[in-house]
Amino acid sequence: MAESRCPSQPLVFLALFYLCYLLLGALTVSLVERPHERRLHLELQVLKSRLLNGSRCLSEAELEHFLSRVLRADGYGVSVLSNASHHTNWDFASSFFFASTLVTTVGYGHTTPLSNGGKAFSIIFALVGVPLTMLFLTVLVQRLMVYVTTRPIDLCQQRLGYSRRQVTAVHLLTMGLVVLLTFFIVPSAIFSAIEHDWTFLDAFYFCFISLTTVGLGDFVPGEQSGQRLRPLYKLSVSLFLLCGLTVMLLLLRTFIQLAGLHGLTQMFDLPLSEDEEGREEEETDEGTILQGSQTDRTPKPPSLNAPPSYNSILPPDNR
Amino acid sequence: MAESRCPSQPLVFLALFYLCYLLLGALTVSLVERPHERRLHLELQVLKSRLLNGSRCLSEAELEHFLSRVLRADGYGVSVLSNASHHTNWDFASSFFFASTLVTTVGYGHTTPLSNGGKAFSIIFALVGVPLTMLFLTVLVQRLMVYVTTRPIDLCQQRLGYSRRQVTAVHLLTMGLVVLLTFFIVPSAIFSAIEHDWTFLDAFYFCFISLTTVGLGDFVPGEQSGQRLRPLYKLSVSLFLLCGLTVMLLLLRTFIQLAGLHGLTQMFDLPLSEDEEGREEEETDEGTILQGSQTDRTPKPPSLNAPPSYNSILPPDNR
Repeated sequence: MAESRCPSQPLVFLALFYLCYLLLGALTVSLVERPHERRLHLELQVLKSRLLNGSRCLSEAELEHFLSRVLRADGYGVSVLSNASHHTNWDFASSFFFASTLVTTVGYGHTTPLSNGGKAFSIIFALVGVPLTMLFLTVLVQRLMVYVTTRPIDLCQQRLGYSRRQVTAVHLLTMGLVVLLTFFIVPSAIFSAIEHDWTFLDAFYFCFISLTTVGLGDFVPGEQSGQRLRPLYKLSVSLFLLCGLTVMLLLLRTFIQLAGLHGLTQMFDLPLSEDEEGREEEETDEGTILQGSQTDRTPKPPSLNAPPSYNSILPPDNR
Repeated sequence: MAESRCPSQPLVFLALFYLCYLLLGALTVSLVERPHERRLHLELQVLKSRLLNGSRCLSEAELEHFLSRVLRADGYGVSVLSNASHHTNWDFASSFFFASTLVTTVGYGHTTPLSNGGKAFSIIFALVGVPLTMLFLTVLVQRLMVYVTTRPIDLCQQRLGYSRRQVTAVHLLTMGLVVLLTFFIVPSAIFSAIEHDWTFLDAFYFCFISLTTVGLGDFVPGEQSGQRLRPLYKLSVSLFLLCGLTVMLLLLRTFIQLAGLHGLTQMFDLPLSEDEEGREEEETDEGTILQGSQTDRTPKPPSLNAPPSYNSILPPDNR
C-alpha cells in the first residue's frame, strides 16, 4: 500500500478557514437577531401584564389571542416565561451553536431567525457552509481512514494472517462498539446528568437524532433555565456534533468498504471500490491480477470488466 | 462509453421496498402516538377551562404554570388553541410525512414523539431508514446521471465539438437554473399562495432549508388551521421532499464531476474520478493513455501516478 505522504497543511488551513466561517456566521446572525428577539420578548411581557392586570376577569377570546401570540413567539425560541427572561438565544455561544447546526444540516429549530434579514442570511450562510462542511469532513475522514481503518486492517492481515474479509468484519464491529460507547452511551450519561428533565433514553434519543443529522429539536441541551456555564456548554455541544459527525462518516465509509468486499454493493449493480476489487482479485484469482485497469475505454458489458469504483458517500482511500 | 445495460428491476424493487418501509413506519408511529396525543390534548383543555372558570381572577403563578404546560405540549406539536382542537398530528398522512422527514434526515420537529415507545421506535426506524434512503437515492441518482448528465454531455461534445470542460460547465449552469426554477421558485410561489401567513421569502426559505435537509421546522406546510385537503397536501410535500433531495444529489454529483475536471479536487489532494482523469488524459496527453490503470499496487508518490477516484458524496458513473 502506498503510504500517504500528503502534507497536512491544506487540511489545517481548511480547518482554520472552516472555524473562521462558523465564527463569522455566529457573529453576524447574533448581531442581526438580537434586536428582534429583544423586541418580541418585550411585546410578550407587555401582553402578559395586560392580561394579568386587566380590570375584569379573563375572557376566552383574550386568552386565545394571548396564547396564539405566545405560541408563535415560542416557535422562534422566544419564551414568555419569567424564568426565561434573562436568557437570550442569540448570545455568541448560542449563535455559534445555531450556525453549526445549520452547516451540519442538523437544524434543531429550537431557535430560528425572526427577521427577514436573518432568514436571508441563513440561506446564504448554509448555501456556502453546507458544501464547505461536506468538503471539510470528507477531507478529514479521508485522512483519518488511513490511520483508523486501512493501516490497522493491513497490519492485522499481514501479521495475523487472517483473510481481509475476516479482519475487516472484526474491525468494523470493534469500531462500531467504540463509537457506540464514546459518542452515544457516555454522552447520554453526561447529558442526562446535566439536564434535569432528561432520562437516559431521552439523552440517547437526542444523541442519535443529532448524529444522524435529523435534528428534530425536541431535545436540545443548554435550554433549561438557570443553566450554569451555558456558553461553554453550548460550545461543547457544537464540538460534540462536529466530532460525532466525522466519526459517523468514518464508520459509514468503513462499512461501505466491508459491504463492497462481501459483494453486497453488486446486488444493486453498484460497482466495488477498486480497493476491494483489487484485493478480492488477489485473494480469489491470482491469474487475473492484471485485470486491475479500470479506465479501459473499450465498451464492455458490465459483467466482464471491473466496473468503476463505488463509494456511496465518500471517496475511496487515497493510497 | 459503455452503455449501461443494467436491468431496472433491482431499482424498482428497491423503490417499492422503500415505499413499504415508509408506509409501515407511518402506520406504526401513528398507532403508538395517537393515544398519547389525545391524552395530552385533553389535559390542556382541562387546564384551560380551569383557568378561565376560576372563581377569582388570574394570578401570576397560575398563569406561569399554565404557560409552562402549554409550551411543553407545543414542543411536541400539541396545541392548546381551540382552532387546533380537531386536528391531529398523527393521522396517516402526517405520520407518513413525519416518517419521511426522519429517514431523509430533514427532521422538522414540528411534531415529535410523545411516548418512550415512540422515541424508541423513531431510533430504530431511522437506524434502518437513513441508510436505506442513502442507498435508494444513490442507486436512483446513479441511474439518472446517465440520462441527465453523461449522455447529454457526450452528445454535445461529439456533435458540437466543444471541449468537455466547456460542455460540462454549460450543462451544470443549465441544470442549476432548471432546478432553481422547478424546485425552488415554482414551489415557493405555490406554498406562499396556499399558506396564508407565508411570504414568498418565507416559502423560498422553507424550500431551501428543507432541500438541504437542515429542516429547522419554523415553517412547515399544512399546519395552518382549516387547511383543506390536508392529507393530500402532506403527502405531496413528502413527495416534493424526496424528489427534491434526489435532484439536489444529482446536481451535487454533476458539480463534483465538473470540479474534478477543473482540477479543483486536487487542491485538497482529493483524486479525480477516473472518468475525469481518463478524459483529461485523452484531451491533454495522448501518449499517456496507457497510464489509466489505477490498481497498480507499487508504492508511488501521489504526484506521479493517477490517484484513485474521488467523488465526495456519490460514486462515479457506472459505464
